[in-house]
Amino acid sequence: MKQNIYDNPEFFHQYKALRQKTSNYNRLLEQPTMKSLLPPLLNLQILDIGCGMGEFAKYCIDHHAKHVTALDVSSNMLTIAQLENAHPQIDYQLQAIEDYEVAAHRFDCITSSLSLHYVKDFEAVIGQIARMLSPDGVFIFSVEHPIATSRKTMEDNWIYDTQGYRLHYAMDHYQEEGLRQQTWLVDGVVKYHRTIATMINTLIDHGLSIDKIVEPIPSKEAIQQLPSIEKELRRPSFLFIKAKK
Amino acid sequence: MKQNIYDNPEFFHQYKALRQKTSNYNRLLEQPTMKSLLPPLLNLQILDIGCGMGEFAKYCIDHHAKHVTALDVSSNMLTIAQLENAHPQIDYQLQAIEDYEVAAHRFDCITSSLSLHYVKDFEAVIGQIARMLSPDGVFIFSVEHPIATSRKTMEDNWIYDTQGYRLHYAMDHYQEEGLRQQTWLVDGVVKYHRTIATMINTLIDHGLSIDKIVEPIPSKEAIQQLPSIEKELRRPSFLFIKAKK
Repeated sequence: MKQNIYDNPEFFHQYKALRQKTSNYNRLLEQPTMKSLLPPLLNLQILDIGCGMGEFAKYCIDHHAKHVTALDVSSNMLTIAQLENAHPQIDYQLQAIEDYEVAAHRFDCITSSLSLHYVKDFEAVIGQIARMLSPDGVFIFSVEHPIATSRKTMEDNWIYDTQGYRLHYAMDHYQEEGLRQQTWLVDGVVKYHRTIATMINTLIDHGLSIDKIVEPIPSKEAIQQLPSIEKELRRPSFLFIKAKK
Repeated sequence: MKQNIYDNPEFFHQYKALRQKTSNYNRLLEQPTMKSLLPPLLNLQILDIGCGMGEFAKYCIDHHAKHVTALDVSSNMLTIAQLENAHPQIDYQLQAIEDYEVAAHRFDCITSSLSLHYVKDFEAVIGQIARMLSPDGVFIFSVEHPIATSRKTMEDNWIYDTQGYRLHYAMDHYQEEGLRQQTWLVDGVVKYHRTIATMINTLIDHGLSIDKIVEPIPSKEAIQQLPSIEKELRRPSFLFIKAKK
């Protein structure tokens, strides 16, 4: 999370253009899955880690959450969040989760969409999250799927034939956890690869119980809107874990 | 489990030769991981599904388990088990798990090494297992890792350069669960591919809680004995799930 690629002007310009498309992976796949995993939000205190432009925080308030604390490391993101999704019950904070400290048992629901793969010390952050969750609290997060982050190359890992048809997905280096540099919109986006076992066991070791795992499958409507998303059937991009205290 | 490739004479001949090597994946990777996940066995009632030649059943009795019910669909396997690993506290039964019925709450520990990927109806079998587990009972199983079973080809899925060096592992068709035919010792070995999400969620849906996930990494000693096993660092062959009632 402390990496702040979102304040790189070139990256942010391209990212914003991508997000403004109605057909993107966030709108068609990630956000529908996240919303399907939420508990009833009525009166809940929510922490959203990596809140970006605040659409999800606003969604929670629109669905009767009591309050959302919404963290992001990017001032670009929070400027847009304040313009487009400001609300008296949302507290946007320019803050990395690693530096965020509150009293224990504060939140009924902690969410994070596609941000924890930027965290270097996953175990420490999960420890913080477990402490901040209220009894029976719920933690739901998505990351890039370990199948997709494993290979230590900056290239596209789809392998194509000479006609440009996707033959298969190249994976490698699964057990070598740690830094991955990728090209996504700009060069040198830094992420951390972790195995599925590491992520699940870290949650359990911090007293959370696994409630559900989702490797999202695009709907027929999503494939109609964005045909290239059909390749999610061949190799999942995202992994969701829902855990309870 | 009802597929009985182990009673195919050519397969069994080759399989037995492979298992008799001191350096094989079972001895160097699968069995050490399975044993590391076991609870203290003193006085436990154990069910071992797909017991093969009975080495594991015998190991449990040697480590003070009270009794092992050991099932296998292969009479070849059970003939060897009776010759090499017979014991009054082990009950070998020629039986598919799908057809095995006992009263609920019978077993303190249910194990299965590399056999549940032969099961067609995973959900039904997990339901049986959950019912047969005693309160606080433990279920530990290994299967071929979904990363390794996903692609619908009968080929080796490692991709090589012209010198025979492994470039990467080809994966595909991850979300298409179901039958896979593979060449392993002989043509046409039938397995079932399931996603990680499906396996974990099926356990949870049947009232089990996830205790630990292991994607085993070979030890340095294992790599010294069998250098080719180092490729496990690049793509895991096995997935273990330990769950509790």
